[in-house]
Amino acid sequence: MAEHRHYVQFSGRLLLLGFGAIGRGVLPLLLRHIGLRPEQITVLRAHDNGDDVARSYGVTQYVEPLRPDNYRAILARHVGAGDFVLNLSVNVSSLALIEYCQEHGILYLDACIEPWEGGHFDTRLTPAQRSNYAYREAALALRQRYGAGPTAVINHGVNPGLVSHFLKQALLNLAADHGMTATPMTREEWARLAHGLGVRTIHIAERDSQYGQRQKRRGEFVNTWSCEAFVDESCQPAELGWGTHERHWPAAARRYGFGRDCAIYLERPGAAVRVRSWTPGEGNYHGFLISHGESISIADYLSLHEGGQVSYRPTVHYAYHPCDDAVQSLHELAGKNWHMQPRQRLLLEDIVEGIDELGVLVMGPRRGAYWYGSQLSNVEARALVPYNSATTLQVTAGVLAGVVWVMRHPARGITEPDAMDYAEVLDIARPYLGPMVGRYTDWTPLEGRGRLFEENIDRSDPWQFCNFLVE
Amino acid sequence: MAEHRHYVQFSGRLLLLGFGAIGRGVLPLLLRHIGLRPEQITVLRAHDNGDDVARSYGVTQYVEPLRPDNYRAILARHVGAGDFVLNLSVNVSSLALIEYCQEHGILYLDACIEPWEGGHFDTRLTPAQRSNYAYREAALALRQRYGAGPTAVINHGVNPGLVSHFLKQALLNLAADHGMTATPMTREEWARLAHGLGVRTIHIAERDSQYGQRQKRRGEFVNTWSCEAFVDESCQPAELGWGTHERHWPAAARRYGFGRDCAIYLERPGAAVRVRSWTPGEGNYHGFLISHGESISIADYLSLHEGGQVSYRPTVHYAYHPCDDAVQSLHELAGKNWHMQPRQRLLLEDIVEGIDELGVLVMGPRRGAYWYGSQLSNVEARALVPYNSATTLQVTAGVLAGVVWVMRHPARGITEPDAMDYAEVLDIARPYLGPMVGRYTDWTPLEGRGRLFEENIDRSDPWQFCNFLVE
Repeated sequence: MAEHRHYVQFSGRLLLLGFGAIGRGVLPLLLRHIGLRPEQITVLRAHDNGDDVARSYGVTQYVEPLRPDNYRAILARHVGAGDFVLNLSVNVSSLALIEYCQEHGILYLDACIEPWEGGHFDTRLTPAQRSNYAYREAALALRQRYGAGPTAVINHGVNPGLVSHFLKQALLNLAADHGMTATPMTREEWARLAHGLGVRTIHIAERDSQYGQRQKRRGEFVNTWSCEAFVDESCQPAELGWGTHERHWPAAARRYGFGRDCAIYLERPGAAVRVRSWTPGEGNYHGFLISHGESISIADYLSLHEGGQVSYRPTVHYAYHPCDDAVQSLHELAGKNWHMQPRQRLLLEDIVEGIDELGVLVMGPRRGAYWYGSQLSNVEARALVPYNSATTLQVTAGVLAGVVWVMRHPARGITEPDAMDYAEVLDIARPYLGPMVGRYTDWTPLEGRGRLFEENIDRSDPWQFCNFLVE
Repeated sequence: MAEHRHYVQFSGRLLLLGFGAIGRGVLPLLLRHIGLRPEQITVLRAHDNGDDVARSYGVTQYVEPLRPDNYRAILARHVGAGDFVLNLSVNVSSLALIEYCQEHGILYLDACIEPWEGGHFDTRLTPAQRSNYAYREAALALRQRYGAGPTAVINHGVNPGLVSHFLKQALLNLAADHGMTATPMTREEWARLAHGLGVRTIHIAERDSQYGQRQKRRGEFVNTWSCEAFVDESCQPAELGWGTHERHWPAAARRYGFGRDCAIYLERPGAAVRVRSWTPGEGNYHGFLISHGESISIADYLSLHEGGQVSYRPTVHYAYHPCDDAVQSLHELAGKNWHMQPRQRLLLEDIVEGIDELGVLVMGPRRGAYWYGSQLSNVEARALVPYNSATTLQVTAGVLAGVVWVMRHPARGITEPDAMDYAEVLDIARPYLGPMVGRYTDWTPLEGRGRLFEENIDRSDPWQFCNFLVE
């Protein structure tokens, strides 16, 4: 084996919450790139699925689900000031953990803001209250309260997470290609750059083409990462950062009625909303407008204000084509009124082949739409790190890079990916992302439209959201 | 092998146009159940795919695509008065063939009214002109012209076709279960029975759960019957018989502006419209509202008129869940703006398992919705007839029964399935349909709705079309 570089030394304890596809996949990366011994790591998982991956790495493992009534006591047993909570669980409130960590001087990172069990399906809550927008607002309120406490990075897998850094790289590449000099340092300077480039809409454009030895069966949910977490987010309302160039209010669109008002949601689960998008490997495709933290945080980050008003903001959302078995799983799930299939299956070791093509598609600049991202194949992922598929490695690379960044910058308080040092983070993740590709395209969502039927399109501006929405 | 019954003797020539999945599958059935020798049969196919199925049965085979400029000359070489044209082709105008057969005293049957090549995608035509409604109106105009000429049965596979007979059986079963005496003989008596039972909506509710050894790959269209014919109909406008109980005009709905006005279409391809439906084996599911002849002919057949006005008509449409690979194929097709994938693959010999569950779901009667139809498994289909899957055998059984009926009743002119003798036809098809099942359910499209999000539903009447439509 090649000698791996230790990016940072860590002498505290690291509590790894959750040991699904991402927890298992990130463990070898942590031990490879961080100066810490297995004895410093404890894995706390909700279920014992019988695997001995944790044991094989020499880390301690407990099976004990966290609940509102026990999490403080359990955390107190495993972590204290200077330690690290790496939260890769589902059904545990990220906000509760963050607050605990802020109170106790504990470093923190998660890949998604999650509620307590059932939160995504709690019909006593309005869709707005079950949204990622609401979770983010709550995290920002905690930041308000705790200031520059121990660093707690939220939403830092690949998306949300690395894609915020892909976007900054894409904006710099675009600037160079458009003959602009740009050395943005502050949030406002990045927003000015996006504005100056004419950026109107940003997709997180992903096409996962991996498939396994056995295709999905009836009554099965199949995915290349956590089936449970994917169904959770698929049933949150479709959410998107809402740009200042938008002229058509979607029929299903709603404002939240609280917070920073940088996004809107649709009165539908994300898995019921399809949008047109494009990746270099797939070309045009229909993806799902699944709610994700980055749709909101990026739109907010790139906003410009004048006289108390928002003068510029791009539209930002996810256009996710999960693996074919997952598309089929969503179709079945919708047919069952969003009641999860009786069986779930993670595609991992039995993946035959495929690529997870995941990047940002930046639309509006003069030279055309520009896709920048990772084209990681399953074959390459497997060769790079055990216990990973292309999909999980993109996430675990983001988690690794985020954890290193937190350890290097331990007093930044609650931090979103957009506020991190993009180049520093990308340097750590890049070796695990396969080919990082930038590609221009003249594709627009108007291409090939209105051929057989009249469609609801605005030909005067290809980048209007109504042109992307599949009806 | 068991001795098979000959239902009819036929001394003329039979020209089999098209030799895809249905043509190949029906050939053994024709030779088994009709008194005719292989030498009386000629297969005319558009492409030579190298198989020697036709030869193995001892029938003559020619490869020669029919076009507007050659079909009359080619037909003249192979058929004349008293002969039979069995049209199972694509890309050949059914109406042109029917007219030729009417002119020349030739019997005729098809399983679908097809236009000349490219007709479904001819953008010089309006959606209304590319509709099954328009094709039917043209066929009815020919009937007007030719009267009780040689019998030409249109639209007689399984659906369209046998489902019209399933429906009559279902109505009789419902009548018995509701304590009604009913011996309908005329069209109007059948309509009165449906009205008396309170029938409001009829779905052709189909769930095909067959899958093959190798799941669909990117760039492939995969289906259990003709990929080409399925894409053709999938890109026709969604069409439905429009019931008198409907109170909400769908946003995308249009009237044709000509003809009998018993149906409407939506300004979208059928493959872009999903509806909620139910089968006994699947439970609730989302199917596609693919345009089909039976949606229109059944609605027309069951209409009652008073004082020149329509006083009763049920809503009738297809709710098709094709095999999972085909669902995935439609998703990809939509993403490519309805441009067919570069490769097509028919699932037939390599089907591993699955059932094609295909019936009518009759909604409105007091005792609940009632599904009646065929639950044919692939294993059973294969054991019954070579060169067939569950899907093709349901169709070929309908074709066989229709051909026998035409031969027995050779002077009925242009005839729709609804006007045939349902019991006589069903008797012939039934041995090939697997279990014929009738099942009541308390399912309605309101079940489980509005749980997580507000939905556009009319709780005062479950059977309103807006309640079925997936938005």
